[in-house]
Amino acid sequence: MFPEDSDEPSVELGEETEIGSAVGYNFAHWKCLKLLAVNADGVLFSPEALQGPAGQHLRTYHSRDVVGVRMLRRTGVQVLLLSEEEDPVFNTLAEREKFSLRQNCKDKLDELDSYRQQLGLSWAEVGYVGHDVSDVECMRRTGVSACADDSDSMVQRIACFVSHYAGAKGALREFTDQVVELNKMGPKTDTEVEVIR
Amino acid sequence: MFPEDSDEPSVELGEETEIGSAVGYNFAHWKCLKLLAVNADGVLFSPEALQGPAGQHLRTYHSRDVVGVRMLRRTGVQVLLLSEEEDPVFNTLAEREKFSLRQNCKDKLDELDSYRQQLGLSWAEVGYVGHDVSDVECMRRTGVSACADDSDSMVQRIACFVSHYAGAKGALREFTDQVVELNKMGPKTDTEVEVIR
Amino acid sequence: MFPEDSDEPSVELGEETEIGSAVGYNFAHWKCLKLLAVNADGVLFSPEALQGPAGQHLRTYHSRDVVGVRMLRRTGVQVLLLSEEEDPVFNTLAEREKFSLRQNCKDKLDELDSYRQQLGLSWAEVGYVGHDVSDVECMRRTGVSACADDSDSMVQRIACFVSHYAGAKGALREFTDQVVELNKMGPKTDTEVEVIR
Amino acid sequence: MFPEDSDEPSVELGEETEIGSAVGYNFAHWKCLKLLAVNADGVLFSPEALQGPAGQHLRTYHSRDVVGVRMLRRTGVQVLLLSEEEDPVFNTLAEREKFSLRQNCKDKLDELDSYRQQLGLSWAEVGYVGHDVSDVECMRRTGVSACADDSDSMVQRIACFVSHYAGAKGALREFTDQVVELNKMGPKTDTEVEVIR
Repeated sequence: MFPEDSDEPSVELGEETEIGSAVGYNFAHWKCLKLLAVNADGVLFSPEALQGPAGQHLRTYHSRDVVGVRMLRRTGVQVLLLSEEEDPVFNTLAEREKFSLRQNCKDKLDELDSYRQQLGLSWAEVGYVGHDVSDVECMRRTGVSACADDSDSMVQRIACFVSHYAGAKGALREFTDQVVELNKMGPKTDTEVEVIR
Repeated sequence: MFPEDSDEPSVELGEETEIGSAVGYNFAHWKCLKLLAVNADGVLFSPEALQGPAGQHLRTYHSRDVVGVRMLRRTGVQVLLLSEEEDPVFNTLAEREKFSLRQNCKDKLDELDSYRQQLGLSWAEVGYVGHDVSDVECMRRTGVSACADDSDSMVQRIACFVSHYAGAKGALREFTDQVVELNKMGPKTDTEVEVIR
Repeated sequence: MFPEDSDEPSVELGEETEIGSAVGYNFAHWKCLKLLAVNADGVLFSPEALQGPAGQHLRTYHSRDVVGVRMLRRTGVQVLLLSEEEDPVFNTLAEREKFSLRQNCKDKLDELDSYRQQLGLSWAEVGYVGHDVSDVECMRRTGVSACADDSDSMVQRIACFVSHYAGAKGALREFTDQVVELNKMGPKTDTEVEVIR
Repeated sequence: MFPEDSDEPSVELGEETEIGSAVGYNFAHWKCLKLLAVNADGVLFSPEALQGPAGQHLRTYHSRDVVGVRMLRRTGVQVLLLSEEEDPVFNTLAEREKFSLRQNCKDKLDELDSYRQQLGLSWAEVGYVGHDVSDVECMRRTGVSACADDSDSMVQRIACFVSHYAGAKGALREFTDQVVELNKMGPKTDTEVEVIR
């Protein structure tokens, strides 16, 4: 994504700092994004589920969100779907779009941490789009955090970016569009590198 | 839930008083809640149903509402789902989440009364989240009453708490969050005990 | 419904008059309602349909609308569902609730007229809840006309009553509630009888 | 549609001009419309899809949009559905309504261009209703362009007409109603012919 980062000299940043806790846009972090973790339940898929009498179960997703994730990945950002519970619906889309997916995450922070380390990334290079209180810990650690406008009020309070759209209604796309746009503005400046160090 | 109540010396309150008729927040009642009855049709599940040509039938629920009920139960509050009609969809979620469910309730007040007595609770310790006119009687008896913002206008008029959200869109969660929050503030004060006596 | 009408001396009214064309509330007509015709497509059922790849087809209805129709019928008003096209979904609910249903109505006015004559009713005693331009003719003939707030703009312009709710989201209930309420106010006065003559 | 055009002396217009780039109503173009291309994904069908665990897949359409397209075709305008991806749901409705449908369009402009040439039409006689960034190129070439109010922000910026309704919620109908209305006003005047030349 950034020419000077191609050999992966990951941005160093004290692991214990709560980076995302500074609400608001911090474009240096947005431009450093290399991994975006997304709560499948409420962000990519609607928080609402359709339930049938024989256990059938359907979830909504938005075609523009899916296109947004595709465009984001083309800029070199990796995408990880997380979910606290198991829902076979998530598999269907993840397989079709070849998204990495971790379900049944009792401890999302732990799951995300090990994935991040596998990729050799610092927390500053990770973004998180959350929906409910179980996402708060992750959102506090990552360089960028975002959520939809129908998220839990606590999640909205700590997110760097609150979309104007609801989950599975374009919120994810609004966020990815801005990341893609920032990446078009060329490699980060020295000041920007400074900020996330 | 309340240390001094662990041996179930249920709060006594004249059974014939219409407690809930006082609209508005009455935090003493909220903190005493031991049983929450919820109309499945329009509160936990959407009032809208999807109907197929061969009798298929689907209902929407919201994952954040379900998480809210789980958090409420962890504080010791019991949950009872009521519904005037029979809908096999309600069974599916009730079984998965181990909710008590009473369907085909021709007289909801009667049903709730016998459940309440089984648990040895006074009306002041019962809460009710309603949706349509058939819930009005119950809402008038219980210590706390709540509804979603797309409920029947009569239901909204008598509810202690009207959510900012629609049914199956987070209304139940908004209510349970506040009960959980109040319970964190410690056992009720003497004045609060006074109020509900 | 009205004690003095029990032996069906139907209100006489010149058949050729366009009664409903006077937009606004005309409570005399509301109180005389004996047959309510409803466009199934867009009023009782959502104008939106869910389409599957193998031709599956689902429609939404609202439980409060169904309850409203039941309460209306208890006051003695008959209900007729009309639809321009054939949709097996409409049958399912009509059978469960024992609604009269006419599908494939190429000429809704003709269909409604013959049904009205079978019941020995004048146009003044018929109400119509419409959704699209094909309902305009009927709405112009009947004593009362209503529609949801997501109806065609022409339909909204000519309706006596435009609901604050969308189709299959409570519009029908808002209308039936008012008819039921008016009926509780007792038999119509002489002046009211005058108005619809 | 226009008496003087019955022998197809297609309006000539420099193919390389970006006609649609002039945002706003240009009634001369609206009246010349002979082919309307519609992105099936997000305009006729909702951008949201319902996904089941076994790959089931449902999409919403609006009955009033379908009626609108029928009325438009009765005035002599042809309709072409385009979609970037393959979705068997689109086939179902297209077959029932006998819409021309092109799926898997990697290059929508190319697809539309060849269809337009087959019909012997100039770009000025083509309209386009788009939803996402992949529609922008087409919208810039056609005589008229429109979109729903939940389209991509870039699409909304360049559209001649932005509906007050969302995709699959009446946006297409609002547009087709206006084209039909304009066609009723009789053949285009000399000035109007001038404008599109």
